[in-house]
Amino acid sequence: MGEREKGVTSITVENAKLFVFDALTALGTPDVNATLTADVLIEADRRGHFSHGMNIFHKIIMDIERGICDATASPEILSESLSTAWIDGKNALGPVVADFCMNLAIKKAKECGFGVVSAKSSTNASIMGYWSEYALKHECIGMAFTNSGPTMVPTGARDAVLGSNPLAFAAPSHGSDNFSLDMATSVVSGGKIEIYRRKREPLVKGWAFNEQGILETDSEIAVKKLLLVPLGGLEAGYKGVGLSCMVETLCGILSGSRFGPFADIWSENRTEPADVGHCFMAINIENFAPYFRDRLHDLLSTHRHCEPVDFAKPVMIPGDPARLYRKKVAKQKGIRYSQQQINTCQMIANRLRIKPLQCKTSN
Amino acid sequence: MGEREKGVTSITVENAKLFVFDALTALGTPDVNATLTADVLIEADRRGHFSHGMNIFHKIIMDIERGICDATASPEILSESLSTAWIDGKNALGPVVADFCMNLAIKKAKECGFGVVSAKSSTNASIMGYWSEYALKHECIGMAFTNSGPTMVPTGARDAVLGSNPLAFAAPSHGSDNFSLDMATSVVSGGKIEIYRRKREPLVKGWAFNEQGILETDSEIAVKKLLLVPLGGLEAGYKGVGLSCMVETLCGILSGSRFGPFADIWSENRTEPADVGHCFMAINIENFAPYFRDRLHDLLSTHRHCEPVDFAKPVMIPGDPARLYRKKVAKQKGIRYSQQQINTCQMIANRLRIKPLQCKTSN
Repeated sequence: MGEREKGVTSITVENAKLFVFDALTALGTPDVNATLTADVLIEADRRGHFSHGMNIFHKIIMDIERGICDATASPEILSESLSTAWIDGKNALGPVVADFCMNLAIKKAKECGFGVVSAKSSTNASIMGYWSEYALKHECIGMAFTNSGPTMVPTGARDAVLGSNPLAFAAPSHGSDNFSLDMATSVVSGGKIEIYRRKREPLVKGWAFNEQGILETDSEIAVKKLLLVPLGGLEAGYKGVGLSCMVETLCGILSGSRFGPFADIWSENRTEPADVGHCFMAINIENFAPYFRDRLHDLLSTHRHCEPVDFAKPVMIPGDPARLYRKKVAKQKGIRYSQQQINTCQMIANRLRIKPLQCKTSN
Repeated sequence: MGEREKGVTSITVENAKLFVFDALTALGTPDVNATLTADVLIEADRRGHFSHGMNIFHKIIMDIERGICDATASPEILSESLSTAWIDGKNALGPVVADFCMNLAIKKAKECGFGVVSAKSSTNASIMGYWSEYALKHECIGMAFTNSGPTMVPTGARDAVLGSNPLAFAAPSHGSDNFSLDMATSVVSGGKIEIYRRKREPLVKGWAFNEQGILETDSEIAVKKLLLVPLGGLEAGYKGVGLSCMVETLCGILSGSRFGPFADIWSENRTEPADVGHCFMAINIENFAPYFRDRLHDLLSTHRHCEPVDFAKPVMIPGDPARLYRKKVAKQKGIRYSQQQINTCQMIANRLRIKPLQCKTSN
């Protein structure tokens, strides 16, 4: 048995990936597609973004089993220019589409300076920050965007007609250091509301509305119909709304996927392909002023060395909390999943008749 | 004399532009550069963005008189690829640099699908939304970014080391309708704090800090040293911080201009060139799924037709408030400036010995 404390079980990164890989290949997924999916899902958990990791895996499996996600499919280029490509994701696994598109954007950036690739008919590709960071080892800035189901309420409205559409931006600093932003355009993600409900804790006022258009703090009510507050809140919510529309324009509008109020909210009862839209960009920094990495290093460094208000809390740049979480996982020699998550994995193992998720046996 | 009420004077758009043009040409500015500057400054006022219009004109004039802005200069291409360009703004008028760069980005987008242009050694180019909207008549998505002086405080820090670095994004819908986002990455801009101070009104809690790192509502204190709260506030401020760093990466870091804590806060005592960094992008929508405009129209339409919480306040998309203000200006046959602004213009007219700003003589 593995290390268990307070209903939490540690799983090594390798074992977590192996479990995802085994389950996907048992369903007929080609090895390369299974590896891509395992890598991004477990990387999400490794960064502490649990809502985008193993937590969504049972829904991916259900979509494959229902035939609305084709785990054997590869994306196809519909049209292409020197710096652009329009992609049909063929309802393939989201990570397979994202990997294809981001590599293509980088290839175009290396050839002509800038690449933009927009894809329709994709599925959930987990954390966007994973894909934007592909660019870092190619001397490129990377950007990744995806649309999502309508859970966000425009300023002054009652209905959710926009997704919390995340955007990610990554740029290389010295060595392996980088600036990596990965954010939803709502104040908090739907996943955070769900976590508060599970813990039976009230929400912070300003995260979600109720159907009367009033800020709701009861997590039980808020989770029933997600009505997320846009980034900026009641005062400056048009900014979150605007960023969400910007992401939707680059994803659904540009690619021709489902969009805005017509996008799919990922439920376990889904019967039609999700038809998610993504957009990926790469900019070759070598085409601009020399010493990019030095300047970015200086920017990040002055930022990190700001005098903090509370000396126990050093100032961090976006991306630092994920880096810290990754170190924590390395130190504790594994990712700590809830018992509920472990149970779900056990159910998956039973149903697919694969080796169960291996708990850590030594510390 | 023009129409005057409560210390407010109406000036026709044409007369306001003529005044800016006359002042600039009196200082030796070529006609084309003076026209570009007059057009964007007065367009800012026409949209109700007074902090970026006539309000900054006296500072532009002082920079020209001191020789730190060269009103006769034209930007120069330092290096170029099919889809990218790196520009030296030559300390020219910001609008001259922005016009050059955005046209170049569009040209590249028409040739190869996507264009990105980053400029150093520029000066204030007024509202970024004016430049992103250049793309609309070319079947392109337009984006415009600029850095600005350090007035924003990273989450948990005491110092302002980031600019409120605005971003603008515009995309064409049916006819002349469009989606146009133009936003600072702080909760509110420094200009808004200044307006509250003039009106002697307290700030909303959550707009600015004081030097103790505590939220400040006294506008008199807040205006002395701008310490703006990032978009997202205390809860999700890393998002505003991240967006500000993203804009800085595309502007200062990519172009090699001054950046972050080293960027210039525009004071009347400036002695060195501002060395502002900008970035402009264009994406040719014709390279992606057909019927882009139809889809964007549907997205905007469902958004605008959401049931409002308050029936007196219809739901708007970003860009709609500026459109409404433009209509108001048309209806009242002029832009209404404060008496303080009129006095400043009179001083400029006296000093440069040009025709004073012409007030409207009929209504």
